Amino acid sequence: MTVFALHPQLQKDCLIIGDLPLCRALLMNHRRFPWIILVPRVENAKEIVDLDAPRRGMLMEEIAQASEAMQRHFKPHKLNVAALGNMVPQLHIHLIARFEDDAAWPNPVWNSGVAAEAYDAEEGRALAGELASLLIAKPGTNRQNAM
Amino acid sequence: MTVFALHPQLQKDCLIIGDLPLCRALLMNHRRFPWIILVPRVENAKEIVDLDAPRRGMLMEEIAQASEAMQRHFKPHKLNVAALGNMVPQLHIHLIARFEDDAAWPNPVWNSGVAAEAYDAEEGRALAGELASLLIAKPGTNRQNAM
Repeated sequence: MTVFALHPQLQKDCLIIGDLPLCRALLMNHRRFPWIILVPRVENAKEIVDLDAPRRGMLMEEIAQASEAMQRHFKPHKLNVAALGNMVPQLHIHLIARFEDDAAWPNPVWNSGVAAEAYDAEEGRALAGELASLLIAKPGTNRQNAM
Repeated sequence: MTVFALHPQLQKDCLIIGDLPLCRALLMNHRRFPWIILVPRVENAKEIVDLDAPRRGMLMEEIAQASEAMQRHFKPHKLNVAALGNMVPQLHIHLIARFEDDAAWPNPVWNSGVAAEAYDAEEGRALAGELASLLIAKPGTNRQNAM
C-alpha cells in the first residue's frame, strides 16, 4: 500500500488549509501574492493526465471552488491557474490572485524577481483558517454554486 | 446574438489547429517551444469559473486530449498547463511541452527572455496539421483514451 505524502518543498513553502475530496489545499507562505496550491492526493501523479477522468473532473471542480473562494475573499483583478511542476515534480496546481498593482503585474509571479515574504505566524494561520471556512465543506451544509 | 471571435492578439500569435467541441485549438507560432493554446468558444469568458460546470468538464477533457497529443508527438519531459490572461483577457489555456534542454528550463516560458521565433510557413502548417490529426476526432472514429 502506498500513502500520499506531500512533497517536502511544498511542505516547507506552504501552510495547510485542509483537505478537499481530492486535493490537499495549501496556502503559499508568500504574503506578496494571495496564492493557493491544490495537490491531488494521488501517488506518483506528475501531470494532470496522470489522473483518470473522474479524478480530472474532481480536480476541475476543486479548482473552481478554490477560484470562487479566492474571488470572494481577495476580489482580484485576475486569477492565474497553472500546473507547471518543472521544479517540484508532484502534481500541484497554483491559483494566484492577481492585482493590477501587485509586484509582478502583468507578468506571471514565477521568475518575477519578487522575493518571497512569509506571513507573520498569526496572520498566516488566520488567513488559512478563513480560506478553510470558504473552501472546506462542513458536514450537513451544501455549498451553493452560483454558476 | 453574440458570436465567438478570437482575440486579435491570439490570432496574430498563433496558427489554427482546429475546433474541438468546446475549444478552438491553436499552435503558438514560436518554434522554440511546442505550445498549444485552447480557447473555449464562449463569449466573455475570462476565468475558468466563468464557464458553467458542464463546460468546465469539457475543458478539462480537452486539456487532457491536448496533453496526450503533445506527449505522443513531442515526448516532453514535462507539460506546463496554465490559464493566466493578465495581458489577453479572453480565457485561453496554454499547454507547453518542456524539455530539460529547452531555452527557458526550469523556468516558465513567459517572461523568460527567450525571443519568439516563428515557424517557417510550411513547417508551421505541417505541424498544425499533424496536431490536428492527433486532436480533432474524425467522424466515425472513436479516440481510445488509454487512461
